[in-house]
Amino acid sequence: VETIQIRTHGKVEFLDITEQVQASVSRAALRDGLVCVWAPHTTAGVIVNENADPDVCHDLRLLMREMSERDLPLRHAEGNSPAHFLSSLTGPSITILVEEGRLCLGTWQGVFFAEYDGPRTRQCWLKMLDTGSG
Amino acid sequence: VETIQIRTHGKVEFLDITEQVQASVSRAALRDGLVCVWAPHTTAGVIVNENADPDVCHDLRLLMREMSERDLPLRHAEGNSPAHFLSSLTGPSITILVEEGRLCLGTWQGVFFAEYDGPRTRQCWLKMLDTGSG
Amino acid sequence: VETIQIRTHGKVEFLDITEQVQASVSRAALRDGLVCVWAPHTTAGVIVNENADPDVCHDLRLLMREMSERDLPLRHAEGNSPAHFLSSLTGPSITILVEEGRLCLGTWQGVFFAEYDGPRTRQCWLKMLDTGSG
Repeated sequence: VETIQIRTHGKVEFLDITEQVQASVSRAALRDGLVCVWAPHTTAGVIVNENADPDVCHDLRLLMREMSERDLPLRHAEGNSPAHFLSSLTGPSITILVEEGRLCLGTWQGVFFAEYDGPRTRQCWLKMLDTGSG
Repeated sequence: VETIQIRTHGKVEFLDITEQVQASVSRAALRDGLVCVWAPHTTAGVIVNENADPDVCHDLRLLMREMSERDLPLRHAEGNSPAHFLSSLTGPSITILVEEGRLCLGTWQGVFFAEYDGPRTRQCWLKMLDTGSG
Repeated sequence: VETIQIRTHGKVEFLDITEQVQASVSRAALRDGLVCVWAPHTTAGVIVNENADPDVCHDLRLLMREMSERDLPLRHAEGNSPAHFLSSLTGPSITILVEEGRLCLGTWQGVFFAEYDGPRTRQCWLKMLDTGSG
């Protein structure tokens, strides 16, 4: 398992880790297969979204907070239940296709680490699957 | 990688692509393993839901729009941030079990392309993993 | 495919199935690879979240119900569209890394069966992928 180290700076933040995932795939010399990117945290996750206009991440933050910060009789003493909720919704991992050594992403797609309870020191674990060509 | 071509007609729409995914698995002669279905778009995704009563998709559309179309100071100039948000939430892909050449789905489960910013011409990419029997 | 049998008791409930998934991986003698855990239901799913403080699951229930039980002109005659909605959002499956025969989970992570329309008798299907070491 390869590990990516991540440092987040905001409460809710989306960090583009596409290049770090691609670098891990290249280091592992994976030509054709899948790479599973896993965030070992319960108040964070991995998502895919647009990496061209930073305003998309700004708007995602607003929409995620609107959805999760509700006036409800929550009990969890740490006070970060909205972060646990967002983590469960977006999920801990993404499995990405790899061909000819490159991540198969759409034109506007990037892989993002999703921080829901930062700032913190985080990591992602990566597992490669070789399927051979075809 | 196999490609499925998709044409959507509504703003938010769920298209049943189960038969197209099964046809790709059959064409690839995959007997036992997994198939990863990836939508290379940032305002769409792939979901699994009931394929029996079309009212389920109607209600999903209402609930998804209610969740994403909020009165917030959004910045993304294209105006489709709700679609990016839904795409990040449901995710770009689904990984489905395959046994004896057939997708392993529950009685009521279908695989749907989720359009959040249509109508558009879209596609899905499919990668097969052979695990052998067992 | 291995099968896990599940009995839920609440309307919306999160059941920790980490030990059952680990037991299946051990039974299959999988050392290094991935295990895909699939819920063959359209009103349930599989999520990952904290397994230390039960208040986290309590708060997840409140936040999930708040998000899905909205005053909208829903049509599905069974009346469980909020459950279909939550099932589509969290997804039917989780793919987990395995190393040296153990699930690779973060310190606080557990695997949970997510019931959105219980109580019911449910199951999960598991597929193992051997990647070899590395």
